Amino acid sequence: MNVVSAQMAKSIAGGSMIRRMFEAGNELRKKFGEDAVCDFSLGNPDLAPPVEVSEEFRVLAVKSREPGSLGYMSNGGFAWALDKLAAWLSEQQMVNLTRREVMLSCGAAGALNSFFHTVLEPGDEVLAIAPYFVEYGFYASNHGGVLKTVPCRKDDFGPDIEAVAAAITPKTRALIVNSPNNPSGAVYSAEDMQRLAETLEAGGRRHGRPIYLVSDEPYRFLVYDGCEVPPVLPLSPYAVVVSSFSKNYGLAGERVGYIAVSPRLEERETLMAGLVLSNRTLGYVNPPVVGQYLMAAALGSSTDEALAVYKKRRDMLAEILTEAGYEFQLPKGTFYFFPKAPGGDDQAFVERLKEQLVLAVPGTGFGGPGHFRLSFAVPDAVIARSREGFARAMRG
Amino acid sequence: MNVVSAQMAKSIAGGSMIRRMFEAGNELRKKFGEDAVCDFSLGNPDLAPPVEVSEEFRVLAVKSREPGSLGYMSNGGFAWALDKLAAWLSEQQMVNLTRREVMLSCGAAGALNSFFHTVLEPGDEVLAIAPYFVEYGFYASNHGGVLKTVPCRKDDFGPDIEAVAAAITPKTRALIVNSPNNPSGAVYSAEDMQRLAETLEAGGRRHGRPIYLVSDEPYRFLVYDGCEVPPVLPLSPYAVVVSSFSKNYGLAGERVGYIAVSPRLEERETLMAGLVLSNRTLGYVNPPVVGQYLMAAALGSSTDEALAVYKKRRDMLAEILTEAGYEFQLPKGTFYFFPKAPGGDDQAFVERLKEQLVLAVPGTGFGGPGHFRLSFAVPDAVIARSREGFARAMRG
Repeated sequence: MNVVSAQMAKSIAGGSMIRRMFEAGNELRKKFGEDAVCDFSLGNPDLAPPVEVSEEFRVLAVKSREPGSLGYMSNGGFAWALDKLAAWLSEQQMVNLTRREVMLSCGAAGALNSFFHTVLEPGDEVLAIAPYFVEYGFYASNHGGVLKTVPCRKDDFGPDIEAVAAAITPKTRALIVNSPNNPSGAVYSAEDMQRLAETLEAGGRRHGRPIYLVSDEPYRFLVYDGCEVPPVLPLSPYAVVVSSFSKNYGLAGERVGYIAVSPRLEERETLMAGLVLSNRTLGYVNPPVVGQYLMAAALGSSTDEALAVYKKRRDMLAEILTEAGYEFQLPKGTFYFFPKAPGGDDQAFVERLKEQLVLAVPGTGFGGPGHFRLSFAVPDAVIARSREGFARAMRG
Repeated sequence: MNVVSAQMAKSIAGGSMIRRMFEAGNELRKKFGEDAVCDFSLGNPDLAPPVEVSEEFRVLAVKSREPGSLGYMSNGGFAWALDKLAAWLSEQQMVNLTRREVMLSCGAAGALNSFFHTVLEPGDEVLAIAPYFVEYGFYASNHGGVLKTVPCRKDDFGPDIEAVAAAITPKTRALIVNSPNNPSGAVYSAEDMQRLAETLEAGGRRHGRPIYLVSDEPYRFLVYDGCEVPPVLPLSPYAVVVSSFSKNYGLAGERVGYIAVSPRLEERETLMAGLVLSNRTLGYVNPPVVGQYLMAAALGSSTDEALAVYKKRRDMLAEILTEAGYEFQLPKGTFYFFPKAPGGDDQAFVERLKEQLVLAVPGTGFGGPGHFRLSFAVPDAVIARSREGFARAMRG
């Protein structure tokens, strides 16, 4: 009896490779001990949330005695939380934002689903530059859209502007950009972002329908060596920023994210009404109430310490990979390396790493075959003891 | 320029009546003062969460100092939270549930969206018994389905079994039942539920595809006069229970809900895999981490006090409505009355109530024209001072 839909049965079957890998990792840990395995497969920040979060829990212990304190609020979040977020984003994005241009949602994933639910017509295309975060495919297809990938520049994982221009059709509704990039660690320059915005505007004019530039940027704070992530909202009326507090404040599990639209968009009231309606009907209903209090408490607290920790780890891992002879680009942002797989077959090479008790993710899972992803959101000790494994896997 | 999709533009326009009502209420409050308006329009529980929730916040103040304490976990929730929930549900539903039959989500709304996303083929029909919670229409159409309403029994808002049987087609995939019912306050009997389950099983056999019996029951604990809500999971392998901790523990804003499937369903591993995948890709990713801690702390704490408060309010409001000459059925559960609109036109009568500074929702909004909904999730004082308004609106 078909207890799930035909499409869902396919998706379940497709997902089982990743599950098998995850299970294989667990088996290795059981067999050889937790401390023998070097797991670079997960992008889960391993630092504690800022101390303001802990303090806010004490405030909530008192507040939660009040009637209705943890009840519903407006579907887009508390007005005071939106005000605070809008002020913070205005500075970061170099435009004047009010709560009328900002919505809180269930993480960045909720914000992206709400956005695609709001703007996509059946069959609309969403462009993504490969390698990319695979969940984008689901976020588009959940709402009748189709994800279409465009290759990145060969030399530096940056956007290939000509390839984006060539990919635009009358059905193109949005380009989703992820800079700093998971999995490549690339950060797009201001000039590249400007040219992307112009390319989309030109395409939109040609086909008589706006093409949104969606910037998904949860790693904005995580850049090294003085690199900067340029603001996106000034670039176009159709620029949209999506992010969360998962990586900078370690709140991934509490599901607080947001979307901000350009104040230059004339019809932004309509777009925001659609986003808020989608927040409600897609079942988020409202951003988690506790998460909003925690976000507001943490907002603006320094991420310098986290940055220093990740920079140290990046440099440690870079040294190990270099010593072993891997070919890679030093990440400018995020906590990921995306080295070339020796031999070219990323799935085979990830298996070889696994034999050395080193866990990585094949680039194929990100639309980037021939590479593998390493997350350095792991304790320093894990990086230190991975030296031998990386070297042996390289020797084959 | 079309900044939202055609369908979304329609939905935004359709929603504006409710928004206008909400804004009208705010205007009345501004004009006549907060204390002059009797607002019976919102189903937002107004009691404080149990004291265990407050205590858990103090625990979290310490726990949140640990690395990764508020990070991601499995898409279906923490194993320990699922174990605790499964044990609690086993007792309530009179079947033996483990964590393999239970998933936590972003409220009951998230669980319902995940369910429909998992099981609906394009064009599939979901039956609902009118009057019903209007969001069901979105939850079905979000995932390619169509909501089809079936009228209730004329005398008592119970399910009309023959009407359900007649509505079944080869495209019928589920019946969604809400007992205790929002907006009618009806509670379906064990016999009615049994007959519904049999009717769906017969229909499923006839068309060679299971028809799920989905029981959405956030008001299960809120029943009066010794009335009981029968367990649903023993009734059929295709029975599914969805609920949340919004009403019983006042956690509506924190978005913790769940879905439990029947242990009699042979292919439940496939169904659960689809649900967990949907939780991930629809953007909930995982149930909010703090909400899971709060839920586990509150689980099993008594709701007797809340019940006593709501029962008193129900009886107060019943007396006022009776005295003024309204025709209504005393709610057996929930915190809603659904009286007949004098004159038959519910929208016109709700306007008349508004002139008396009494806010209600027209039954038309629930597929129940000719009635209006009153929520008694309001302080006793609001009920007490509504007496004159109800009487005057009745006199016309």
